[in-house]
Amino acid sequence: MSKISFYEAIQKIRDSNIPSIGDEIIFFGNSLDRVLNEDIFAKEDMPLFPVSSMDGYAFKIEYLEYFRQNGLEISQDNPAGSDFIELERYKAIKTFTGSLMPKNSDTLVIVESVEVKDNKIYLRENIQPKQGDWVRQRGDNYRSGEMLLSKGCKITPYEIGLLAELNYAFVRVRQKPKVGILVSGNEIIEVGEQRKHFGQVRNTNQHLLRAMIEKMGGVAVVYKNTHDNLDDIREIFSMMLRECDFIVTTGGMSKGDYDFTQNVILENSEVIFQGVDIKPGKPTIFAIDKNTNKPILGLSGNPNAVATTFYVFGKFIFSKLLQQEEHLKIVNAITQEEIKKKDLRMEFRSCFIKLVSGKYEISFMQKKSNQSAIINNLCGESALAILDKDFIDKNQEIKVILFKEFD
Amino acid sequence: MSKISFYEAIQKIRDSNIPSIGDEIIFFGNSLDRVLNEDIFAKEDMPLFPVSSMDGYAFKIEYLEYFRQNGLEISQDNPAGSDFIELERYKAIKTFTGSLMPKNSDTLVIVESVEVKDNKIYLRENIQPKQGDWVRQRGDNYRSGEMLLSKGCKITPYEIGLLAELNYAFVRVRQKPKVGILVSGNEIIEVGEQRKHFGQVRNTNQHLLRAMIEKMGGVAVVYKNTHDNLDDIREIFSMMLRECDFIVTTGGMSKGDYDFTQNVILENSEVIFQGVDIKPGKPTIFAIDKNTNKPILGLSGNPNAVATTFYVFGKFIFSKLLQQEEHLKIVNAITQEEIKKKDLRMEFRSCFIKLVSGKYEISFMQKKSNQSAIINNLCGESALAILDKDFIDKNQEIKVILFKEFD
Repeated sequence: MSKISFYEAIQKIRDSNIPSIGDEIIFFGNSLDRVLNEDIFAKEDMPLFPVSSMDGYAFKIEYLEYFRQNGLEISQDNPAGSDFIELERYKAIKTFTGSLMPKNSDTLVIVESVEVKDNKIYLRENIQPKQGDWVRQRGDNYRSGEMLLSKGCKITPYEIGLLAELNYAFVRVRQKPKVGILVSGNEIIEVGEQRKHFGQVRNTNQHLLRAMIEKMGGVAVVYKNTHDNLDDIREIFSMMLRECDFIVTTGGMSKGDYDFTQNVILENSEVIFQGVDIKPGKPTIFAIDKNTNKPILGLSGNPNAVATTFYVFGKFIFSKLLQQEEHLKIVNAITQEEIKKKDLRMEFRSCFIKLVSGKYEISFMQKKSNQSAIINNLCGESALAILDKDFIDKNQEIKVILFKEFD
Repeated sequence: MSKISFYEAIQKIRDSNIPSIGDEIIFFGNSLDRVLNEDIFAKEDMPLFPVSSMDGYAFKIEYLEYFRQNGLEISQDNPAGSDFIELERYKAIKTFTGSLMPKNSDTLVIVESVEVKDNKIYLRENIQPKQGDWVRQRGDNYRSGEMLLSKGCKITPYEIGLLAELNYAFVRVRQKPKVGILVSGNEIIEVGEQRKHFGQVRNTNQHLLRAMIEKMGGVAVVYKNTHDNLDDIREIFSMMLRECDFIVTTGGMSKGDYDFTQNVILENSEVIFQGVDIKPGKPTIFAIDKNTNKPILGLSGNPNAVATTFYVFGKFIFSKLLQQEEHLKIVNAITQEEIKKKDLRMEFRSCFIKLVSGKYEISFMQKKSNQSAIINNLCGESALAILDKDFIDKNQEIKVILFKEFD
C-alpha cells in the first residue's frame, strides 16, 4: 500500500465507518468537559416576567408628568426574591437588582437619578426616563422552547451555568470512549524499575498516551507490554477489541523482524491506510477491526512521533466516536527565523510559540534538531509548525497546530 | 474610591501581596494539569550511549572500502532491548530501531540500502554511507544535569511523558488553591428545588464558579447561601477565611439596602480596588483580608458578569497563588460586522468566534444584545471581544479574549 498525504489520511478517517459511542445520563454538576447528547431547550421564558436590572424605583411612565411636578411617594421596598407586589397610583416602589417589577409598573428610575426627601422621590435635573428603562423584559434572555445548546457541544463551565439556570439536574452525555493502549517492545522498562543493562529505556508512551486520552475526554486502559511475543500480542489484541472502543499501539511498526504488532493489526482488520507522507509518523497504520468495526491506530515507538500522530489522528478518531465536530486548532504564526527542511515529507516540527500583541510568533531556537525521538521538545510553550516547503523565510506567516490545547 | 481601568485593576492584582500556596509531592501519573514546584533536571545523558534510529546494519566506517568490495558478513541480530554486543572486524550486526549500537561500530546502513545474500550484506549502487549515519549520539536529546522543566510550568501530557522518560516517579507540585464560594441573595433557589413564587431564580453562579475553579486548577468549596442576613454572612466569612486560600462572592454588591456582602468585605479587609470601569463587572471589589492576607473577589450577581470578571480577574489571582506566569489569551480577530457601543466603559462583549484559514473571525449575530445577565451568550464557540471604542467598523482587527480556554 503506497503512502498517502496527511490530508488524505484525515479524510479517510472522516469517511470511515467507526461505530459511535453510546450515551449515559449524569448529574449536570459532573458533566464538565463531557459531550452533550441531547439538544437543550428553554422550558420557559427568561426572565419569566419583567425584572429590574438595577437598584432603583419602579413606577409607571404614565405618572411621569405628575412625578416631575410632585414627586412620587415610596410605598414600600421590593427586594430581590420577593413575590409580586402591586404599585398604587402615583406611587413608586423601591426595587432592587433582580427583583420582579411590581404589577402596574413598567419603568425603573435608578437611585442615582432621584433625590429622596420625606419618603418621596424627586427626579434630578436632566433625567429623562423612558418607558422600560432598566427593565429586563420577558424573554430577553430566551424564549420557552428556544434551543440553547445542541447535541455534540462540549460542556464548559458556562454551559454548566446555563444548565443550572434552566434547571436541568440531569443531562444525557456521550460515554467516554474507552481506549486500549498497547505498548510493545523488549527494551521497555517501567518508571521506578531497576535497569538491568543500558539497552533498556523507560516506558514513556504509555504515560503520554494515557494523559492525552484523558485530555481528549476518554478513559485509557493500559494493557501488558507483551515484549514482542506474537502469541501474546494476538491474545491481548482480542481482549482489547472486546473491552475497548478504540485501540492504540506503539512500537512494532517498522520493518524489523521483531515487529509483531504490525502483523497482528494486519491479520484481522481492514487497513484504511498504512504509511503517511509525514514526518514524524511515516509508518502510521489506521485500520478497522473486521468483526467489531472498532478503530485501531498503530503508531511507531518514538515518543515525539507518538505524541504528534496521536494528536493529529487521534483527535479525529475521537470526533468520530463522539460524533463531535472536529477541531484541530490551526492558526497562522510568524516565523522568527528561516526554516530549512531536507525530507520531502510534510513535517510537523515542534516550535516555541508566544502571543505578541495578539499575533502568534514561533521560533525553533530553543528546540533540539533531529526531533523524532525527542519528547522534551514538546514541553513548555510549544506548537507544531506545519512545514510543507523546503525553505521558509523569516517573518513569513505559516500554519501551526496548537497541539497543547485539548479544550 | 473612584473606579479604575481594567489594566490598572490587573496591575493592582499583580502587585498585591497574596500569600502563595504550599506544595505537595504526588505520583507523576496523577500530575496532569498541575503546576510544577521544582525544576526538573536530566539525571543522565539521553541517549546514554549511541543508539540506532532505524532498522539496519551496524558497521564501522573504517570497513567501508572493504564493504564495497567484499560485502560484510552478518554476525548476529541486535534487537531493541539487548545489552551491548561487540562487532568483529569486517562484519556487520543487524541492528533495530532503538537498539544500542554494538561496541566497535559507529555507523548504520539502513535495510533499504543493502542487498542480503548468503548471510552477507552488499551496498546498493549510489549509497554513500557517512560516519554516524542513522545513529542517535549520546546526549542528542539532553545532557545529564540539563534543566528540562522549570518551576511554575503546567504539566500537560507531554510533560508527563518526559517525567516518565526521566524516571521521576514522584514530583513536587503546588497544592490546588482552595476557593470558597459564597453566593448570596434571597431570590436564589437550588437546581431541582420547587419554586414558591416567580421572584425566585435558579442558582447559576455557584455551579458556574465551581466549574471555572476546577478548570483553573483549584478546588471549590461552596458555602451556604446566607439569604442576605448580615450576621450569617459575617460568620461564614470568617469560616471561609480559615478554610480557604481565596474567597469569591457573588451578589450583594450594588448599592441596595439588602446587599450585605459588600459591607462584610469592607469590614475586615484592605480594599485594593472597588469599582472597575468595565462592562460587565463595574462593582467588582478586590480586597485582601487584614489578618490572613488572603484574596477576596467580590462580584455582582449576574451570571454573565460573574463569568467574565471571574475569568479576567480570577485567572490573575490564581497565577499569584500558584506563582505561575499569567496567561490571558488575547488574540487578534477580524470583525464581521460593525460594532457600536453606548456605554463609556470598556466592554467585554461575548461574540461567536471561528478560525478561518488560520485567522480568527468574530460575529455578534447569534448573540443576544443587552448581555450583562445572559449566561447563554457565553455558550458554544464564544470569545470576549474587548471593545474600547464607540464604533468599530467591519473587517477591522480587534482584540478578543479566548475565555473558554483554561489550558
